[in-house]
Amino acid sequence: MDSPTLVAALRRVVPAERVVDDPAVVESYLQDHAEWAEYGQAAAVVRPRATAEVRDVVRFAVEHRIPVVPRGAGTGLSGGANAVDGCIMISFESMDSVLEIDRAERLAVVQPGVVNDDLRAACAEQGLWYPPDPASSPWSTIGGNVATNAGGLCCVKYGVTRDYVLALEVVTGRGEVVRLGRRTAKGVAGYDLCGLMVGSEGTLGVITEVTVRLRPRREAERTIAGYFDSVIAAGEAVSAVSASGVIPSALELVDRHCLEAVDAWKNMGLSTEANVVLLGRVDTPGHAGEEEARTILRCFEEAGATWAALSTDEHEAEALFDARRLAYPALERLGPVLTEDVCVPRALVPEMLARIEKAAARHDTLIANIAHAGDGNLHPLLITPIGDDAARLRAQAAFEDIIADAVELGGTVTGEHGIGLLKRGGLRREVSPEVLEMHRAVKNALDPHGILNPGKVFA
Amino acid sequence: MDSPTLVAALRRVVPAERVVDDPAVVESYLQDHAEWAEYGQAAAVVRPRATAEVRDVVRFAVEHRIPVVPRGAGTGLSGGANAVDGCIMISFESMDSVLEIDRAERLAVVQPGVVNDDLRAACAEQGLWYPPDPASSPWSTIGGNVATNAGGLCCVKYGVTRDYVLALEVVTGRGEVVRLGRRTAKGVAGYDLCGLMVGSEGTLGVITEVTVRLRPRREAERTIAGYFDSVIAAGEAVSAVSASGVIPSALELVDRHCLEAVDAWKNMGLSTEANVVLLGRVDTPGHAGEEEARTILRCFEEAGATWAALSTDEHEAEALFDARRLAYPALERLGPVLTEDVCVPRALVPEMLARIEKAAARHDTLIANIAHAGDGNLHPLLITPIGDDAARLRAQAAFEDIIADAVELGGTVTGEHGIGLLKRGGLRREVSPEVLEMHRAVKNALDPHGILNPGKVFA
Repeated sequence: MDSPTLVAALRRVVPAERVVDDPAVVESYLQDHAEWAEYGQAAAVVRPRATAEVRDVVRFAVEHRIPVVPRGAGTGLSGGANAVDGCIMISFESMDSVLEIDRAERLAVVQPGVVNDDLRAACAEQGLWYPPDPASSPWSTIGGNVATNAGGLCCVKYGVTRDYVLALEVVTGRGEVVRLGRRTAKGVAGYDLCGLMVGSEGTLGVITEVTVRLRPRREAERTIAGYFDSVIAAGEAVSAVSASGVIPSALELVDRHCLEAVDAWKNMGLSTEANVVLLGRVDTPGHAGEEEARTILRCFEEAGATWAALSTDEHEAEALFDARRLAYPALERLGPVLTEDVCVPRALVPEMLARIEKAAARHDTLIANIAHAGDGNLHPLLITPIGDDAARLRAQAAFEDIIADAVELGGTVTGEHGIGLLKRGGLRREVSPEVLEMHRAVKNALDPHGILNPGKVFA
Repeated sequence: MDSPTLVAALRRVVPAERVVDDPAVVESYLQDHAEWAEYGQAAAVVRPRATAEVRDVVRFAVEHRIPVVPRGAGTGLSGGANAVDGCIMISFESMDSVLEIDRAERLAVVQPGVVNDDLRAACAEQGLWYPPDPASSPWSTIGGNVATNAGGLCCVKYGVTRDYVLALEVVTGRGEVVRLGRRTAKGVAGYDLCGLMVGSEGTLGVITEVTVRLRPRREAERTIAGYFDSVIAAGEAVSAVSASGVIPSALELVDRHCLEAVDAWKNMGLSTEANVVLLGRVDTPGHAGEEEARTILRCFEEAGATWAALSTDEHEAEALFDARRLAYPALERLGPVLTEDVCVPRALVPEMLARIEKAAARHDTLIANIAHAGDGNLHPLLITPIGDDAARLRAQAAFEDIIADAVELGGTVTGEHGIGLLKRGGLRREVSPEVLEMHRAVKNALDPHGILNPGKVFA
């Protein structure tokens, strides 16, 4: 079916205005934020307003064997939401309602297009808290967060998106609307198909509604900052915190390259003071929280911090976390940034950081580091000058080396960004052929016509 | 293949002494603790000592299309580990080693036959804590806990077994040994097949090794006890605790029938003082924990407790929890006990308890209640005089009514015990035909020969 025929047919399936075929508009939907990930040409973009419309589009796609690519805000970093040639993109921007917040059960029911920060704000009004906080939270949507099992800063203490998804409404690869999971605190009726959908990157079903577990609003956090001479010393401080038994509510690392880029942009003067900054937070209330903060401070000092302090000033603490949040856009000013996402056992953070430094030197590539250090989840950021193809090839070689190192250290190729397109080779490196075959078997079982986001996760 | 031929053949596959065929011994392996669940006659019991032996047995079973039923300690309450006619039972009692406890990463690697309490004790020696605490913890094994996604008392605050399983080694339905999951704090490489195995009751793979996440040792708990005139008043206290924002580390309910049975056995004098006892615990350290305990006390008092107090005496508090733990064996002295396991939204605990009372009256059946009330997970215990077939039929009718009520209230037919054999009808009631079809598709994908615990979860 050619594209105009398909668009005309789709406009008989759902209200005509849901279907976008203006090439300039379609173009804006074709890729996520993954640098260097290929993307194809979509036949049409549909912006549904109800589950029944999603179902009808998927049924149409099943009938005509057309690929369907679901998409949230497109903030992904692995190419998972990139267009496949001839596909129908389903964009959830118009399904963005918070349908219900239940204080007694501490749960919320939302449409997939709700922006993470908007859900958090709606919960806060009720004295409740939705913990998963990917750095993309001002833009990324709950549907996308669920599809990638997004992490964030506070997951070192509070877990990842999967830990908060109680139930899903999903349109299956057969075009059926199903409810998976439950509304109760516990439940073991049958297989955990709800958990299986989380992190499956749109390859097993199209998410049309999400029920998430909430927590009571928490106390204000205390912040502990430490400046270090080397990533190795900072890594040792991270290991010491882990060994101390304190579970911080955040433990972030920002290296010199990031600090310099932030300074060059915002003139915060950080890079003159430190090669590496560690930012710890605790949210345990009262005296016990004070004790935890002091323990983290002691860990920083004993690992050789050149300066470390409990922040008594909330404004100052926020400024330090702003520097962490600004690192990525600050680096993007220098050129295209390819974001890595390896995760290693906590105690091997210093070793992994040392290997990243070696890969940078070996391939003559600028690699900056931000890291959810308390989780062992590192985000080496590979930066290349715009239009420098040779530099890009060197960066890609460094990218592959970092993946290989992470696997060698017993880690994973992706801590929170997903496989998408960029890590398909990494997945093959990480899991055995038998496990990959299990993936294929599950995919074929739940998407027998192979229409759901084909080519993502595995080829 | 007749049973003697099969036993002889198995003795060529694994060391001969691993294979048990003494009828009296085999008999002791045929069923779990589910009252009234049918069970078949096993052809042989194998007690492997290594993963390779399990793999060889499963390959043999694949080749000859013989059902395989994995079994831990047999403490299950749904018939999930019951023998299927002609099957090979694989009992993990000889694979009971704690292989590794890693303090820095806070994880443990164990064989499936390790008893829950033994793992907890080994962790405690290292200042660590494995939270999942099913009431069967002195006997049940980690392999069985994983297969059923076991819950327990502290999961109201700390989650269930799935929340602690990082990785599994599994023998698949094709007789391959695979590793699923990871050792890192986070990871999103591919589908969550590890989580899918948890709670799949031996129907998708045979678990041969388990890597669990641990927590730092926690502070001593504070106990709050409340006596109530009615289950309704107690249920309102539970709702009030939930609405207060305090997350207790346990919130258990024990009703008059249980108290009387415990008194009749242990003469603790509880039933003269209360119709229903609520036991709350908090483990937040320091002053904040004191505040939480006082909040729970206030919730008890405002819901109309006839007596409520913070326990200042650890011995007294333990005695009250002993009464809760003794309820089940105390009731078993009265006759066969069929254990229900419905879970409803927290706010509907009073309504569900009222419906259980009605079902008891309607079907003239003695129904006692213990409950993980803070989770909405109720354990109505249906007691019938030994050998009274009419009473048994009435109890089974009450059992079905309770399941129907739980589903009607938006709950689940099983909060933590699993589907096994007893709740297969309940699963059909709870999920749609399309979702059941998804279960079948996943089962066929991962167990193409249909040899893994066939007939469990769904027929």
